[in-house]
Amino acid sequence: MFKTVTTRAARQFVQPSQTAGVARRYAHTPVAFDWKDPLGTNNMFTEDELAIAETAESYCQERMQPRVLEAYRHEDYDKKILEEMGELGLLGATIKGYGCAGVSSVASGLITRAVERVDSGYRSGMSVQSSLAMGGIEEFGTEEQKEKFLPGMAKGKILGCFGLTEPNHGSDPGSMETIAKPHPTKKGYYSLSGAKTWITNSPIADVFLVWAKLQETGKIRGFILERSECPPGTLSTPKIGDKNGLRASITGMIQMDEAPVAHEMMLPDIEGLRGPFSCLNSARYGISWGVIGALEDCIDRARTYALERKQFKGNPIAKYQLVQKKLADAATDAAYGIVAATQVGRLKDEGKAAPEMISMIKRQNCDRALVNSRILQEIFGGNAVSDEYHIGRHVANLFVTQTYEGQSDIHALILGRAITGIQAFV
Amino acid sequence: MFKTVTTRAARQFVQPSQTAGVARRYAHTPVAFDWKDPLGTNNMFTEDELAIAETAESYCQERMQPRVLEAYRHEDYDKKILEEMGELGLLGATIKGYGCAGVSSVASGLITRAVERVDSGYRSGMSVQSSLAMGGIEEFGTEEQKEKFLPGMAKGKILGCFGLTEPNHGSDPGSMETIAKPHPTKKGYYSLSGAKTWITNSPIADVFLVWAKLQETGKIRGFILERSECPPGTLSTPKIGDKNGLRASITGMIQMDEAPVAHEMMLPDIEGLRGPFSCLNSARYGISWGVIGALEDCIDRARTYALERKQFKGNPIAKYQLVQKKLADAATDAAYGIVAATQVGRLKDEGKAAPEMISMIKRQNCDRALVNSRILQEIFGGNAVSDEYHIGRHVANLFVTQTYEGQSDIHALILGRAITGIQAFV
Amino acid sequence: MFKTVTTRAARQFVQPSQTAGVARRYAHTPVAFDWKDPLGTNNMFTEDELAIAETAESYCQERMQPRVLEAYRHEDYDKKILEEMGELGLLGATIKGYGCAGVSSVASGLITRAVERVDSGYRSGMSVQSSLAMGGIEEFGTEEQKEKFLPGMAKGKILGCFGLTEPNHGSDPGSMETIAKPHPTKKGYYSLSGAKTWITNSPIADVFLVWAKLQETGKIRGFILERSECPPGTLSTPKIGDKNGLRASITGMIQMDEAPVAHEMMLPDIEGLRGPFSCLNSARYGISWGVIGALEDCIDRARTYALERKQFKGNPIAKYQLVQKKLADAATDAAYGIVAATQVGRLKDEGKAAPEMISMIKRQNCDRALVNSRILQEIFGGNAVSDEYHIGRHVANLFVTQTYEGQSDIHALILGRAITGIQAFV
Amino acid sequence: MFKTVTTRAARQFVQPSQTAGVARRYAHTPVAFDWKDPLGTNNMFTEDELAIAETAESYCQERMQPRVLEAYRHEDYDKKILEEMGELGLLGATIKGYGCAGVSSVASGLITRAVERVDSGYRSGMSVQSSLAMGGIEEFGTEEQKEKFLPGMAKGKILGCFGLTEPNHGSDPGSMETIAKPHPTKKGYYSLSGAKTWITNSPIADVFLVWAKLQETGKIRGFILERSECPPGTLSTPKIGDKNGLRASITGMIQMDEAPVAHEMMLPDIEGLRGPFSCLNSARYGISWGVIGALEDCIDRARTYALERKQFKGNPIAKYQLVQKKLADAATDAAYGIVAATQVGRLKDEGKAAPEMISMIKRQNCDRALVNSRILQEIFGGNAVSDEYHIGRHVANLFVTQTYEGQSDIHALILGRAITGIQAFV
Repeated sequence: MFKTVTTRAARQFVQPSQTAGVARRYAHTPVAFDWKDPLGTNNMFTEDELAIAETAESYCQERMQPRVLEAYRHEDYDKKILEEMGELGLLGATIKGYGCAGVSSVASGLITRAVERVDSGYRSGMSVQSSLAMGGIEEFGTEEQKEKFLPGMAKGKILGCFGLTEPNHGSDPGSMETIAKPHPTKKGYYSLSGAKTWITNSPIADVFLVWAKLQETGKIRGFILERSECPPGTLSTPKIGDKNGLRASITGMIQMDEAPVAHEMMLPDIEGLRGPFSCLNSARYGISWGVIGALEDCIDRARTYALERKQFKGNPIAKYQLVQKKLADAATDAAYGIVAATQVGRLKDEGKAAPEMISMIKRQNCDRALVNSRILQEIFGGNAVSDEYHIGRHVANLFVTQTYEGQSDIHALILGRAITGIQAFV
Repeated sequence: MFKTVTTRAARQFVQPSQTAGVARRYAHTPVAFDWKDPLGTNNMFTEDELAIAETAESYCQERMQPRVLEAYRHEDYDKKILEEMGELGLLGATIKGYGCAGVSSVASGLITRAVERVDSGYRSGMSVQSSLAMGGIEEFGTEEQKEKFLPGMAKGKILGCFGLTEPNHGSDPGSMETIAKPHPTKKGYYSLSGAKTWITNSPIADVFLVWAKLQETGKIRGFILERSECPPGTLSTPKIGDKNGLRASITGMIQMDEAPVAHEMMLPDIEGLRGPFSCLNSARYGISWGVIGALEDCIDRARTYALERKQFKGNPIAKYQLVQKKLADAATDAAYGIVAATQVGRLKDEGKAAPEMISMIKRQNCDRALVNSRILQEIFGGNAVSDEYHIGRHVANLFVTQTYEGQSDIHALILGRAITGIQAFV
Repeated sequence: MFKTVTTRAARQFVQPSQTAGVARRYAHTPVAFDWKDPLGTNNMFTEDELAIAETAESYCQERMQPRVLEAYRHEDYDKKILEEMGELGLLGATIKGYGCAGVSSVASGLITRAVERVDSGYRSGMSVQSSLAMGGIEEFGTEEQKEKFLPGMAKGKILGCFGLTEPNHGSDPGSMETIAKPHPTKKGYYSLSGAKTWITNSPIADVFLVWAKLQETGKIRGFILERSECPPGTLSTPKIGDKNGLRASITGMIQMDEAPVAHEMMLPDIEGLRGPFSCLNSARYGISWGVIGALEDCIDRARTYALERKQFKGNPIAKYQLVQKKLADAATDAAYGIVAATQVGRLKDEGKAAPEMISMIKRQNCDRALVNSRILQEIFGGNAVSDEYHIGRHVANLFVTQTYEGQSDIHALILGRAITGIQAFV
Repeated sequence: MFKTVTTRAARQFVQPSQTAGVARRYAHTPVAFDWKDPLGTNNMFTEDELAIAETAESYCQERMQPRVLEAYRHEDYDKKILEEMGELGLLGATIKGYGCAGVSSVASGLITRAVERVDSGYRSGMSVQSSLAMGGIEEFGTEEQKEKFLPGMAKGKILGCFGLTEPNHGSDPGSMETIAKPHPTKKGYYSLSGAKTWITNSPIADVFLVWAKLQETGKIRGFILERSECPPGTLSTPKIGDKNGLRASITGMIQMDEAPVAHEMMLPDIEGLRGPFSCLNSARYGISWGVIGALEDCIDRARTYALERKQFKGNPIAKYQLVQKKLADAATDAAYGIVAATQVGRLKDEGKAAPEMISMIKRQNCDRALVNSRILQEIFGGNAVSDEYHIGRHVANLFVTQTYEGQSDIHALILGRAITGIQAFV
C-alpha cells in the first residue's frame, strides 16, 4: 500500500502545482510590513470588497465617530444612524434582491468591522437589523413577508428587532415561556404573551421577530409582530438603562400581553430552535468580524498614545519592551482573527460553513479582542480612566460581546461536544 | 468628498461581486463539523497540495512514528530518515529544478506539518536540510554550487547543516567571532576558524553552510564547507547530548581550526546578515506549520485518552467541562494557526511576504502550540509522566521550537519595532 | 564542616520547638472550611483587630452600600461619608495621638478592605485623606502642623488631598514642573504655580499637600496649601468627570497660579521624592488590602448568582465545572492576598517592611483582583451588563486601582531592579 | 444595633491593640529588600525552625545536588539518600516519639522546601516515606505497629511506600479493585490481590501501606504488607521507567497475588477513604512547600543566567524589561506561596486546618510553580535545552507534581464544592 503512496507522490512532484510555479522572490525584494494589516489580508479580498470596506470605513469615521462619545455617556442611541446606513446600502447587505446589495459574506464582514471600529453598540444595532431581523425574514419568511418588510428595512425606514432571550433563560432558549395562542377576539390572529429581555433596538423597533411556543403544538415558531398593529396595553418595550457597556446601543424588553399577530405573519415551515439559531449564527459571524474592528481601533489608539506619551528620559513609552509586547500580541490576534473570519466567510458563501465554525470564530475573536483591549488599556496608565481616550469604552463593550449570543464558555462546550461527541451541559 | 464615497458604494452594491453571487445555503443544508479540520482549511488547498500532504502523512505515520520513541529515549537520530524523505521528494521541495519537486510554499508547509506531527526533532532535521542548507545554496549560490550540491541533497545522500549561532551570541549573530582568512598554506582557499553551537545535524553533516566574518572586509559571508575537504584536526563536530527536548534530532557543535574552504565555495554577492536571515526566515515559515502538526497530534491523543479514560461514575473524562474546554481551546488555536500560515504561504509565493509576517506566525504558532500542548497534557493526569503517551515528548519539543530561530520575546520585539518604528533591544 | 551541621540539627531535633508541641489533631476532628475565609486568616488577627474590622464592615454595608449605585451612576461623591468615617475613628487610624485611633497596620488594612468591599472609589477617598494627606503631615510635618490639621482631619471636618501627579509625568514625578518661589507680594510666603491632575478629592478639599520644586534649591518639597488662604484666581480645582471607573470618588485638578503658602506650611527636613514616595507607599499598602475586599465582594455576588441562576435541566449554574473553577481561582487569590498583606502589615509595624515588599503586594493584589473580578463577571453572562449586579462596577474600578499609584508594569520593574540590581526604565 | 457597633469601635480605638503600639518606623530607616525572601518570611519562623531549615539546606546542597544530574539522566535513585536523611532526623520529622524529631509542621515544610530545591523526585521519595508511610502508621496504627516500624523508618533503614492508586482509578480511588480476603492457607492472615501503579519507592520498599477492600465488609482498609513476609510469586514491584519527569525518584507497581498479611497488620478502626485521604492530605501539605523550593531554585538560576548572559550591546539580558518581569512575577508567586503554606502549617499544628485549605495551597503552589518555572525557562533561550542548566528538569518535575495527589482541576472542583455546596464531578 505504501508503494502507491510513493507513486502518487512522485507524480505530484514531477508535475508541480501551478501555484508553485510562481517564483519565491520575497527574499530579494524586501516587502514592507503594514502594521495595520500585519498578515496582508487585504490580498484576500476582491476589489469590490475593498471598495465596500472603504465606503463603510469613511462613513463610520466621518459620521459615526463624532457622535459616539456623547451617545455612550448618555445612553442615547440616534436611530437616524440606521437610516444613514440604509442609504449607503449597508443594511442586510448580503441579501439578494428586495433592495439589498447582495454582497459577499466577506464584504458584509468588512462593513461590520468598520462599524465596530467605532463602537460595538453601533454594530449591535446594525447586526440586529441586518442579521437577526432582516436575515430571519429573508431566510424563513414567505414571499409576501419579504416584500412587505425587507425593502423598508434595507433603507432603515422600518426598524426591526429580534425577540428570543427571556429573563430566566439566557443560554437555554428551549425553555422559553412566551406563548402564542389563538387570539380571543380577533379572528385569524394569534395572541402573543410573555416577556423578552436584553433586546437590542426593542424600544425603537417597528417590527419584532418574536419567537414563541405555539400553544397547539408546543413547538417554537417565529412571528413578525408589528408595533402599529398592537392596541394599547398589549405591547410595551421599556428601555433598559444604566448599562455597563454597549451604552451607545439601545436595549430593552418586549412585554407582550395578548399582542395580536396575524396568522400570515408567522414564519412558515420553520419549527423549533433551528430558526432562531440560524439567525443567531449569522449574527455571530458578523460579531467575529466586528470585534476585530474594535480591537484594531484599540491598537491604533494605544500605538498613538505610546508614541506621544513620554516618560523618564524623554523617551516615548513605545520604546518600552513591555509596551511593544502588548502591541505585538494584539496585532497578532487581530490579524489571525481576520484570516479566520475570512476563511469562514468564504465557506459560508460556498455553503460549507458548519455552525461550530461560527461558534469557534465568534468565541475566539471575542475572547482575544477582549483580552487584548484590556492589555492595551494598561498602556494608557491612569489616563485610561478618561473616556476621551475611547479605549475604556471598547473594553466595556467587548466584555458584552463576549457574553451575548453565546457566552464564551457556552461556545467552548458546543465545540467540546463537536470534538468529543459528548454533551457536557448539565 | 463624502458624496463620492456614497456614489462609489452605490456602484458596488448595484453590481455585486461575483463571490457574492453564490447563494448562502448553509443554513438549510447542515454542514458537518470535522474536529480534525475545524475551519475547513482543506478547502484552501489545491488538489496537488492535498495529495502531497497525504503522501507525507502516510510516510510519517507508517515509517517515522514507530521509530520515534526509542530514538527520543536514547537521543539516537537515524539519518536514513533523510534518505527516505529524499526518495519521496520531500527535501528542498519548493526548489525548482536540481532534482527538487518545485511545489508551492503551502505544499511544503503541509509536508512540514506531517513530519512534526510525529516529532519536532524529525522536522528540525528536515528543516535544516531543506530550508537552511539547500535553501541557502539555492538562493545565494552560484550555478556551480547548486549543481554540485542540490541534487544529492535533494536525495538525502548529501547531508547539510547551517552554522550561524555561536556560543555567546544566541539572539545576536552580528557579534559573531568565526573568521575567514586567506588560508596560510593552500592557495585559492580560505581558512575558517571559530565555533558554532546548537547546530542541528552537524555531527552527521557532509556539508556545512557556515557564516563567518571575512577578515579583509569585516563583513559576514557564507561558505560551503565540506567535511571531506578538511584535514584531520581542522574540523570537529561533537554531538551535544543530554538534551531536554528535540532528543530525536541530532545536535552538535562545529569547531573549526583553520578549516580549508575554496574561494569558489563562498556564496557570491551576499554580504552581512541578510543572507542567513533570509534562510532563517524560510525555516521559520516551516516551523510555523510544523508546530501546528505537533499540536494536532496532541489534540488527537488527548481526545482519544479522554474518551477512553473513565472516572467516577464510569463516565469518560471527555464529559468534563474542564476537559472539553481544553480541547476546544487547542483546536481553535491549531485551526487559526493553519489559516494564518496558509495566508503567509500564499503571499510568499506571490513575493508579498514581509519578514515580520513570518516573525508573527513563527512566534504565535510556536507559543500557542506550546501553551496548548501543556494544557492538553493535564488531561492525562499522572499518566502523562509515561513517555508512551507521547504528549510529554511533544511538550518538551515545543518548548525548544519556541526558543530557537528567534525566541518568542525576540520576535515580539521585532514586531514591536515594525509597529512602532522604535527599536527596543537594549 | 558538614559535621557541625549534623550536630546542630541533632540538637534541634532533640529539643523540638514549642509550636511543634501542639498535637496534629486535624485529621481526627474535621475542621469546617469557610469559603469567606478559605485560609483561616481570621486566626492571624487579634481580637481588637477583628472587632475593628466588624465595626468597619457594619458601617460600610449598612451606610455606604445603599448609596453607591446612584453615586457611581452620576459621579456624585457624598463628602459626608468622610465625616461619618471620622466619627467612627476610621480616618488616619494608624496615627497615634492627635485624636487618631492608633491601631495596627493590619487593623487599618481590615478597615480598608471593608470599605473597598463596597467600592474602590470610596476607599480611594479615604486613602487620600488617611494615608496621603494625614499620613504625610504626621510623618513629615512639624508639631504645629500636626496639631493644626490632624485632629480636624481625623474627624473628617477638614478634607485633604495630595498633589503629586502632573499632566505629563504620570510614572515619573521627578520631572515635575510645579514650582514654589518667594511670593512676589506676601512676605513670609511662597507662591505655588503649576498644575496637578488626577487628584482624588481635590474639588472638595480644604487642605492640599502639594509637592513642588523649590526654586532656590531646585529640590522637591512638600507644602500644605489651604484653600481658605488662596485669593480668587490663585487656586482652582475643577472636577474631572466622565470617568470610566472610580465614579463614586471625586477627582480633579489642582491649578495653582501664584497660590500663597506660608513658610511654616512647608514640610521641614524632607527633600526630594523620598517624602511623596513614603506617603504613596502607605497608600499602596492600603490598596493591597482594599482590592481584596472588592474581589471578595465579587466572589460573594458571583457565588450567589451562580446558586440562584438556573439553566438547562433546572440546575443552578453553580453546578458547572467551568463556574466552579472560576470561583475556586478567585477565592484562592483573595486568600493569598490577605495572608501576604497581613505579613507585610506585621513587618511594617516592626519597622521591617521594605518599599519593594509593598510594590509586590500592591501589584499582585491589584492584578489578581482585576483578573479574577473579570473572570467572575463572566458568570453573570449577559446580565453582567446591568449595573445592579455591581460586578461591572468593581471590574471598572479595579482596572483603575491597577494603574494608579504605580501601574503594574512599573512595579514589576521596581521589583526587577531589586532582584537584578539593574535599572530597566529606559 | 448600629449604635453598639459604634460604641465597641470607640472602645477599640481608645485602647489600641498592642501590636499597634509599635511605631511605624520603616519610612525613616530604609529596610533592605532580599530577593531570596521578598516578603520577609524568615520573620515568621522560630529560631528552631530556621536552624532546621539551615541543616536541611546544607545537606541538600552539599550532598544531594551533586548527584541529581546523573540520577535524573539514568532514572537511577540512590536509596542511600533516605538513610542519610534519617541520620539527620529529616524523616517523619513531625512525629513525636519513636525516634522522630517532633518538629512543627512549618519546620517540616522548610525541610521539604530544601529538598525540592534540589529535585522534586528526591522530595517525592522523602514524602512517601515520611507523610504517607510513616504518617499513616503513626496516625492510624496500633501501638505495636508504630513501635515495630517507625524507629527503623525514621532512620531510613526500613523503606516504606503507599499503595492507593490503581491503573484505572487515578482520581477516583473509591472504585479500587484490590481485595483482602481471608488467606486460603495461612491462618490469621489476609491475602491481598490486586495491582497498584505509579507507586513512588515501590521497587525498593520493605514495607507497603496498601489500601484494599476487605471482602467481608466491602469497606476500604489499610494493611501493612512486608516484603519479607511474601513468598515468591505473591508480590512483585516492577519499576516503571522511561518517565518524562521525576526521573530521580523511583516509581513502580505493586502487584499482589494472594500476598499474605497478618490480621494484626491491618490498621485498626479506620475504614473507607478517610484513612488514605488523611495521609494524602499530609503529603499534599508537604508538596505545597516543596514546589516553592523548586521554583526558588529556578528563580536563582534564571537570575544568575540573566546577569551573566550578554547580548546585543554587551548588556546582560537581565536589563531587559521582559526578563525582569518574568523574575518579578516568579518571585511574587514564590513569596506568596510561602506565606500561605506557613499560615496553613500554623493552623495544622493548632488543629484548625481544613482539608480544603490543603487542596488550595497544594493546587495553587503547584500551578504557580509550574507556570513560573516554564516562563523562567524562556530566559535561557536555546540553552535551556541543555540539562546542565537544571531548569528543564525542574519544569518537567513540576508538571508531575501538578498532576499527582490530585490534579489541579480535581482540587479546583473540591474547592468549588466547598464554596458552592454542589458536587460537579460527573
